[in-house]
Amino acid sequence: MAVPKVAIVMGSQSDWPTMQCAAKVLDQLGVAYEARIVSAHRTPDRLHSFGKGAADEGFEVVIAGAGGAAHLPGMVAALTHLPVLGVPVKSRALSGQDSLLSIVQMPAGVPVGTLAIGEAGATNAGLMAASILALTDEGLRQRLIDWRTAQTEAVAEKPVD
Amino acid sequence: MAVPKVAIVMGSQSDWPTMQCAAKVLDQLGVAYEARIVSAHRTPDRLHSFGKGAADEGFEVVIAGAGGAAHLPGMVAALTHLPVLGVPVKSRALSGQDSLLSIVQMPAGVPVGTLAIGEAGATNAGLMAASILALTDEGLRQRLIDWRTAQTEAVAEKPVD
Amino acid sequence: MAVPKVAIVMGSQSDWPTMQCAAKVLDQLGVAYEARIVSAHRTPDRLHSFGKGAADEGFEVVIAGAGGAAHLPGMVAALTHLPVLGVPVKSRALSGQDSLLSIVQMPAGVPVGTLAIGEAGATNAGLMAASILALTDEGLRQRLIDWRTAQTEAVAEKPVD
Amino acid sequence: MAVPKVAIVMGSQSDWPTMQCAAKVLDQLGVAYEARIVSAHRTPDRLHSFGKGAADEGFEVVIAGAGGAAHLPGMVAALTHLPVLGVPVKSRALSGQDSLLSIVQMPAGVPVGTLAIGEAGATNAGLMAASILALTDEGLRQRLIDWRTAQTEAVAEKPVD
Amino acid sequence: MAVPKVAIVMGSQSDWPTMQCAAKVLDQLGVAYEARIVSAHRTPDRLHSFGKGAADEGFEVVIAGAGGAAHLPGMVAALTHLPVLGVPVKSRALSGQDSLLSIVQMPAGVPVGTLAIGEAGATNAGLMAASILALTDEGLRQRLIDWRTAQTEAVAEKPVD
Amino acid sequence: MAVPKVAIVMGSQSDWPTMQCAAKVLDQLGVAYEARIVSAHRTPDRLHSFGKGAADEGFEVVIAGAGGAAHLPGMVAALTHLPVLGVPVKSRALSGQDSLLSIVQMPAGVPVGTLAIGEAGATNAGLMAASILALTDEGLRQRLIDWRTAQTEAVAEKPVD
Amino acid sequence: MAVPKVAIVMGSQSDWPTMQCAAKVLDQLGVAYEARIVSAHRTPDRLHSFGKGAADEGFEVVIAGAGGAAHLPGMVAALTHLPVLGVPVKSRALSGQDSLLSIVQMPAGVPVGTLAIGEAGATNAGLMAASILALTDEGLRQRLIDWRTAQTEAVAEKPVD
Amino acid sequence: MAVPKVAIVMGSQSDWPTMQCAAKVLDQLGVAYEARIVSAHRTPDRLHSFGKGAADEGFEVVIAGAGGAAHLPGMVAALTHLPVLGVPVKSRALSGQDSLLSIVQMPAGVPVGTLAIGEAGATNAGLMAASILALTDEGLRQRLIDWRTAQTEAVAEKPVD
Repeated sequence: MAVPKVAIVMGSQSDWPTMQCAAKVLDQLGVAYEARIVSAHRTPDRLHSFGKGAADEGFEVVIAGAGGAAHLPGMVAALTHLPVLGVPVKSRALSGQDSLLSIVQMPAGVPVGTLAIGEAGATNAGLMAASILALTDEGLRQRLIDWRTAQTEAVAEKPVD
Repeated sequence: MAVPKVAIVMGSQSDWPTMQCAAKVLDQLGVAYEARIVSAHRTPDRLHSFGKGAADEGFEVVIAGAGGAAHLPGMVAALTHLPVLGVPVKSRALSGQDSLLSIVQMPAGVPVGTLAIGEAGATNAGLMAASILALTDEGLRQRLIDWRTAQTEAVAEKPVD
Repeated sequence: MAVPKVAIVMGSQSDWPTMQCAAKVLDQLGVAYEARIVSAHRTPDRLHSFGKGAADEGFEVVIAGAGGAAHLPGMVAALTHLPVLGVPVKSRALSGQDSLLSIVQMPAGVPVGTLAIGEAGATNAGLMAASILALTDEGLRQRLIDWRTAQTEAVAEKPVD
Repeated sequence: MAVPKVAIVMGSQSDWPTMQCAAKVLDQLGVAYEARIVSAHRTPDRLHSFGKGAADEGFEVVIAGAGGAAHLPGMVAALTHLPVLGVPVKSRALSGQDSLLSIVQMPAGVPVGTLAIGEAGATNAGLMAASILALTDEGLRQRLIDWRTAQTEAVAEKPVD
Repeated sequence: MAVPKVAIVMGSQSDWPTMQCAAKVLDQLGVAYEARIVSAHRTPDRLHSFGKGAADEGFEVVIAGAGGAAHLPGMVAALTHLPVLGVPVKSRALSGQDSLLSIVQMPAGVPVGTLAIGEAGATNAGLMAASILALTDEGLRQRLIDWRTAQTEAVAEKPVD
Repeated sequence: MAVPKVAIVMGSQSDWPTMQCAAKVLDQLGVAYEARIVSAHRTPDRLHSFGKGAADEGFEVVIAGAGGAAHLPGMVAALTHLPVLGVPVKSRALSGQDSLLSIVQMPAGVPVGTLAIGEAGATNAGLMAASILALTDEGLRQRLIDWRTAQTEAVAEKPVD
Repeated sequence: MAVPKVAIVMGSQSDWPTMQCAAKVLDQLGVAYEARIVSAHRTPDRLHSFGKGAADEGFEVVIAGAGGAAHLPGMVAALTHLPVLGVPVKSRALSGQDSLLSIVQMPAGVPVGTLAIGEAGATNAGLMAASILALTDEGLRQRLIDWRTAQTEAVAEKPVD
Repeated sequence: MAVPKVAIVMGSQSDWPTMQCAAKVLDQLGVAYEARIVSAHRTPDRLHSFGKGAADEGFEVVIAGAGGAAHLPGMVAALTHLPVLGVPVKSRALSGQDSLLSIVQMPAGVPVGTLAIGEAGATNAGLMAASILALTDEGLRQRLIDWRTAQTEAVAEKPVD
């Protein structure tokens, strides 16, 4: 598989069951990625060097997931000009409402494209990364369109008990 | 200016004061765009044909803003494989909380990269569109980096009364 | 049973356990209905043709249920002049608060009569559809009044441990 | 004008600026209505006799608006088998969030079709009442379709500054 | 035991596990009460006659519990001049937030003294009813003071694992 | 006027415009009261001695209003066995949602009968205090009933523009 | 171990599983503490004497945890000039949202440094107490720095399934 | 005045009207401070060097204020072992609810002592910083006690119109 163009970073090992959904859909679409733990709070130096170096490492899109006071996506976005997609991981007390607001309510100047709370959001971050890369990768574009078509065709006409 | 690669669509004329912030930053970065009113609810056919045809029109990124039960971004995303960025416009009664949840909580399979509520979100949608296009446009990448650098340099050291 | 006057549509098979409550009460009242899966996001063409054709198919009321960024009810309402009843399905992270706001906060011009989150809402959508049809169907009106009377009589005087 | 088929009731004179939007759209559509103040809390007897007698008075649809602990719509629905549409009036402290939940979260058995908070909701209650009556009134159906078409055509292609 | 001065009413049998906490503390304090199911929505006539007759039946305080769009406490308060205490029963989707707002946000003119969501609230409704009756019942006042003292003394100095 | 049976306490002078509504309705009903500032946070000793001595001072009901982290009602309730009514004063940032939860969510054992946020709540606290005192004051009971009747009669039949 | 400089107080035995996390981290850092139950509502005198005497007892920092209408931290802060750290314990119905607002929204003049809802907040209260004491205790400062370094080093590079 | 022991940092010039309240109270207490703009998002390098060097600069407490997706307090806390106090600045759309959750919901391991939203929180951050420094500065302790006493004495007995 090719050099990874997508970085999937997350604040903690406990975010992996959620963020794996991003990895899974990228696998399906044949998009190479690399998954790393980068904690904004526990490893701020790793955050700083990851963010600063992401473009030089060859990444084109960063998917960042975190929960609670979720600072990782916004801080990565502060450190790179690459598009950053944020995934609010469901938190224990507030079900991800804190994660969502911490990620999406960025001030003007530093964007994070935020997806839904939890696994759906992680899957969609993978799809959105693919849609970005597909702009200049015809093969990927066709695979993405096929994936979407298959999804449409998989919807049954009638509900079953 | 070049053929527009960014479509800025909004549910109503009343969203324009917000969405104009996206236009403004794209102007600053020299990115061509086209702004249209596409109401998911009042012009569903226009929505359908816009979404289906967006890629063929040559757009590469769609920025969609709406308020309240804000269905425009998600419905455009349902109709195209292009990356769609959603801007929750501040609503009268609920200050955009309804707009935000209506846009960001998309089910797995159809992503919308959601920005902050209101003007900051619109500005950031413009910046994020630019960061996506910059992946294959070196000149734009440099302008984006310069814009970010200028923003950094404009932050004073000390607050003034 | 007669040609169905009520369409029960839902965004996904996973909404059926909730929406079945609408079907159940319509069965009790002898109102013919048809249940279909119509995903606003995964099957936008099916949505478009369902909404446009609902009146011609002979439906008089549409019950639409969806969860999260629940766009189905509002989009059906955008495509038909029939009365549309919306059921916010309980969502995983936000317990249906997102579904509720996405359905109820429609802009002026395109109404969705929204019921409660979850099974109670689906039951009530069925009852409300019946109350609408009962305006011109005396037999149904009597069955509805009887159903309501039976409900009243079933309330015990005293709680039991 | 004909005998009114729509009752517009509201908890207080202060709800009228909101509820007037329902009246206005019914006027446009040529639907006769009658507006009354019926306070669930300050005039519970009036509520009781209104609810019990609404069908006998010849009403076919009830639009009920209230704010705060908004009990009027649900209590009318408890007293009649007619379809009841609820409008959450924007409240002072909580911007109508209390009104919305008090109206929409009805238990299984007694439905209230709830519209959006505030003026948009009142307009839509009028439209929905019309769509219900239009099921058996061809002239009204045509006027409703025309109203919707005019609305669609009134949406400009491009936003203006 | 004496003629009951406290009525405990609830919207449904399913509220009894919560409302039983009010009964329990009244038992402990030797306050006679009567528990009844009075559904505002399913038995509006029973509500009406209960509310109107509560004072004549000899009740001095009414404790009313309900969940969701919880109209029972406010409607009882609309029908009687007796003090009414409201208990928001925990609801399935919104954990009682809807119940709380539906009960507490009463308009000026018709008060409901609202307690906490769920069992704590029901216990406290019982205690508050007792504190009201204790104003003119010295024996009860002493039992209430003793209950409070015992509660204070039951608090350990140190937590144990 | 008689010795005051109602104490109106509030956390700060800035709560008076709200709490005055309680005073006003007590004036109308001929119930003597005394208004004091007792800050739980700035005057904890005053709080302690007020709460401990309230019954001995001859008060029979305490109305306590506060905003934000509103601890006054609950702390008074912890210090007295008298019935305590809490009024959540509208706060600047959160519109009284913090005040409401801080007052109403008391643990089992120490009740506060909580009224609506803001002026309506203060008025209702006055009415509820009157309804409690009316249990053993026939004259007050009649005045309260008259007040309620006048309120009912003041509700117009029809809204006016 | 030395005379305790940190008091850990909580409203109830049921808060101990949460507050134990503060104790645990203080143990790891070699900071002596004392844990007590002080209920603002059930033991207001104990609260009063604890708060007034905390400084004289030799405490330098108070960690106070409580749930629901959580008045303990703010009331301790009202009674002492020592720094008070508040831990919102997760509540049953509202998941600690009530606890959080009751603790953090203190009026100007009486501060409570509030940590996250639940166990993370308790752990962090312990760490913050240590950081305060470390200002004048070089050994503790080194242990705190080492603890933080160990935490950083414990973060793996890659997530594992 | 002495070398500043308190750093007041904020994300933007627009936070200064709020954060000035911290400065004002520190002035009153004779505590030297230094105010700087450090934007987590627009000046991430300044953030990194500020956080890493804060202890070496001689600061003992950091007060950090920010609004929206407010990452500054948590990121400073990630970079220093000094006690960090967070002030949620009121945001435009969500009134500081986003700021509050972004600051307070820190994961275990990196504490931020969070104060109330807005000016009250900023004042209290100043007071809390003073209470921390007062642990080893007898003069400051006395000034703080005097400040608190003056505050208590300034509370009038009775409200005035």
